[in-house]
Amino acid sequence: MKEIESKRVLIKKVLEESDKFVGQEGVLVCGWVRSLRKSKHCSFVVVNDGSTQNALQIVVDPAVANYEDISKMITGFCIRARGKMVASQGKGQTIEMVAEKIEIIGTVNDEYPLQKKATSLEFLREVAHLRARTNTISSVLRIRHALSFATHKFFGDRGFFYVHTPIVTASDCEGAGAMFRVTTLPPGDAADFSKDFYGKPTFLTVSGQLEAECLALGLGQVYTFGPTFRAENSNTPRHLSEFWMIEPEVAFCDLDDLAELASDYLQFLIGHVLDHYRPELEFLSTQNQNGDLISRLQAVRAAKFHRVSYTEAVQILEEAMNSKKQKFEFKVYWGCDLQTEHERYLTEKHFMGPVIVTDYPKEIKAFYMKENPDGKTVRAMDVLVPGVGEIIGGSQREDDHQKLVKRIQEMQLHEKDYWWYLDLRKFGGAPHAGFGLGLERAIMYVTGMTNIRDVIAFPRFSGSAEF
Amino acid sequence: MKEIESKRVLIKKVLEESDKFVGQEGVLVCGWVRSLRKSKHCSFVVVNDGSTQNALQIVVDPAVANYEDISKMITGFCIRARGKMVASQGKGQTIEMVAEKIEIIGTVNDEYPLQKKATSLEFLREVAHLRARTNTISSVLRIRHALSFATHKFFGDRGFFYVHTPIVTASDCEGAGAMFRVTTLPPGDAADFSKDFYGKPTFLTVSGQLEAECLALGLGQVYTFGPTFRAENSNTPRHLSEFWMIEPEVAFCDLDDLAELASDYLQFLIGHVLDHYRPELEFLSTQNQNGDLISRLQAVRAAKFHRVSYTEAVQILEEAMNSKKQKFEFKVYWGCDLQTEHERYLTEKHFMGPVIVTDYPKEIKAFYMKENPDGKTVRAMDVLVPGVGEIIGGSQREDDHQKLVKRIQEMQLHEKDYWWYLDLRKFGGAPHAGFGLGLERAIMYVTGMTNIRDVIAFPRFSGSAEF
Repeated sequence: MKEIESKRVLIKKVLEESDKFVGQEGVLVCGWVRSLRKSKHCSFVVVNDGSTQNALQIVVDPAVANYEDISKMITGFCIRARGKMVASQGKGQTIEMVAEKIEIIGTVNDEYPLQKKATSLEFLREVAHLRARTNTISSVLRIRHALSFATHKFFGDRGFFYVHTPIVTASDCEGAGAMFRVTTLPPGDAADFSKDFYGKPTFLTVSGQLEAECLALGLGQVYTFGPTFRAENSNTPRHLSEFWMIEPEVAFCDLDDLAELASDYLQFLIGHVLDHYRPELEFLSTQNQNGDLISRLQAVRAAKFHRVSYTEAVQILEEAMNSKKQKFEFKVYWGCDLQTEHERYLTEKHFMGPVIVTDYPKEIKAFYMKENPDGKTVRAMDVLVPGVGEIIGGSQREDDHQKLVKRIQEMQLHEKDYWWYLDLRKFGGAPHAGFGLGLERAIMYVTGMTNIRDVIAFPRFSGSAEF
Repeated sequence: MKEIESKRVLIKKVLEESDKFVGQEGVLVCGWVRSLRKSKHCSFVVVNDGSTQNALQIVVDPAVANYEDISKMITGFCIRARGKMVASQGKGQTIEMVAEKIEIIGTVNDEYPLQKKATSLEFLREVAHLRARTNTISSVLRIRHALSFATHKFFGDRGFFYVHTPIVTASDCEGAGAMFRVTTLPPGDAADFSKDFYGKPTFLTVSGQLEAECLALGLGQVYTFGPTFRAENSNTPRHLSEFWMIEPEVAFCDLDDLAELASDYLQFLIGHVLDHYRPELEFLSTQNQNGDLISRLQAVRAAKFHRVSYTEAVQILEEAMNSKKQKFEFKVYWGCDLQTEHERYLTEKHFMGPVIVTDYPKEIKAFYMKENPDGKTVRAMDVLVPGVGEIIGGSQREDDHQKLVKRIQEMQLHEKDYWWYLDLRKFGGAPHAGFGLGLERAIMYVTGMTNIRDVIAFPRFSGSAEF
């Protein structure tokens, strides 16, 4: 005798294959009650099991053995229902269940936090352990899955290898950015690192790029997909102290190839969500001020990505500024770092589509980027998309040993910390390039969510490590 | 004018689709020289690009413009070659290239560590930044990718959602296991955690399970795939301080369903490697004492997984011990933790195939496992495979709020630390179950590698955080 019946069917399957299911008896679904309409003559229980955005309506006739259980039910109850699938008469659904049996698995009481009508996103962050049961957060988490899955499919199909670069590291990828220290020394002890777990100070990684380069120069094409960390005290809706990055790194690849890879990747991600997560996108389009997510995504999916050099981009921005067409908070000049307002002007107003800006001044970029023959710029690129600005940053890497040593010295980094990274240029080196995509930024872009704390299950930021 | 030709073809593609390639001219490959045979009349350059185990032989005729470059080449050089693909006369390959042009991209000199004939696995760990260029480590890393990719495919196809549980946490999953502390306090400072980044002590996670349970009870079926950490000073060939875990968690699932999921998953992983990474398995079979990896894996792929309760397993082991059929270092008795020697006896000698042992004594298992009606055992399972012993551990979770509180108290954990975990049993709870697979253990099993430091690109263990 089995306590639990295992042959439950996902509601996603029932809804997507409704033609096949109509007429079937004894179908079992499990899930959480989203809403209820009760009467003496008949009750309607709307159930969601998390497998998809939409819910299944279950019609319960008083003839059902335990009909009195329905009267106890409220939103949030976990139930199991077995019944016959029939074509639905109501609008908004094509199939519904006529219950043969309905059972309560888990109850809720008045304390259940999600019962309140007004569950703001702010409030939901305080009950992050339960918020995957809400329409908004569950749809965002499904799209998070979709982007992750599409990432593995895109790179896997192209012969890239998924690699795991270290999380705990003794080196600092960019010589910049506050890092978390990892230790087994007792708190408050003298800082005798010889007694620490790794025998020296260690930190949480800010990027897997340098290690990924080692692997690309052996396996050819690799990508990382893992957590990265920044200990900056940026208490903004766009920053987390723990976030996930995807970093492809490709041997025998220059900046042009990389730009093509980045736009192909972005369009593949968007296409995957458009093709497979339409109910989520439709729901999210009703939930925020970004308007119609679907047409915005369709436009980027079909777009040709413009390419423009940083120098040309600065000219465009200066022109806009001088002709008073556009006001910027930050002044634009050759050598300045482009701000989000500048990026958004380029992509939303000037090019009206995605843009790849290349060849930035070397002073504002990291030491490992390949110097152009002009001696002033490096082979960096940023991919800008409407509504967000920069979504991908990458570069061709400096593969000249002497030039790389010079850059490390110029930037006052320590050559000996990079012995292994420099070795890659000494032994069988090859041109190579790579980029990084912040997963959470990509989810915000696709879902239209405006606070990064709502696109990861359990957000980590200054002062907050709950759950 | 492009400096680098982007249309290179992966050697994997050339070898797998040799019928299509034979006769094609102007094919471009890039890679690293694995071996060379030079003569005045003709030279043979064997090149590997990391895309697959096997290399491509390039025949270079002295008529090629820069034939004198060949004389400079040694193993480890990075080259680019363009030529015509022809059917190979030599044995061991079906296709080879007759070079039209061959160029040196990156050289090596006498200091190149991989030139030595005897590059032991121990030595390669010291040059982990270069070892992805070796036959053994590159094949292991490709199988690592294969298992990762197959994981996403298996769960994705079944409607599971990939979720990211936090890496930095204020809670301790099992109330056991040494943890790394994460901090931004300056080393040696007084331990004033109110000034620390998160305002309290935080640690690197040992498991994403508890958070995954929150998500399963909303999305239905989820899995994690991320790094986990143990600060134990276990300097053994089977332990890392940083390793990757896959943890599915399933709502409306009992231990029987879970055992089925685990065996399906394991067989899918093995099938994927057998079907798509045969050259790697063939190579690795020649490299270790495990003998024929392929037939071992084929056997498990086709096997029915035996199921036995812990109590029955102990009887089997006691019988073997008493009948002097088998000597064990550790004595077996009801209540003991099964050691690897016991697990291997069960799977290799008694059942001669994979075994799932269920219903362990509650005293030797974690607080969150569901108690059986006997009051003595819990709904835990371990999956044992020949050659390794335990490869998967899981359980149905305690879904009774009162019983869980009692277990937390009995194990002297703090109820208030688990408020959110307990909430899952208070509000709309459901039976649920999940297991964990250590990725590195699985790779060791599939590849036959005997040191866990050789199955992850940059291993982390006590005293070692290089690269």
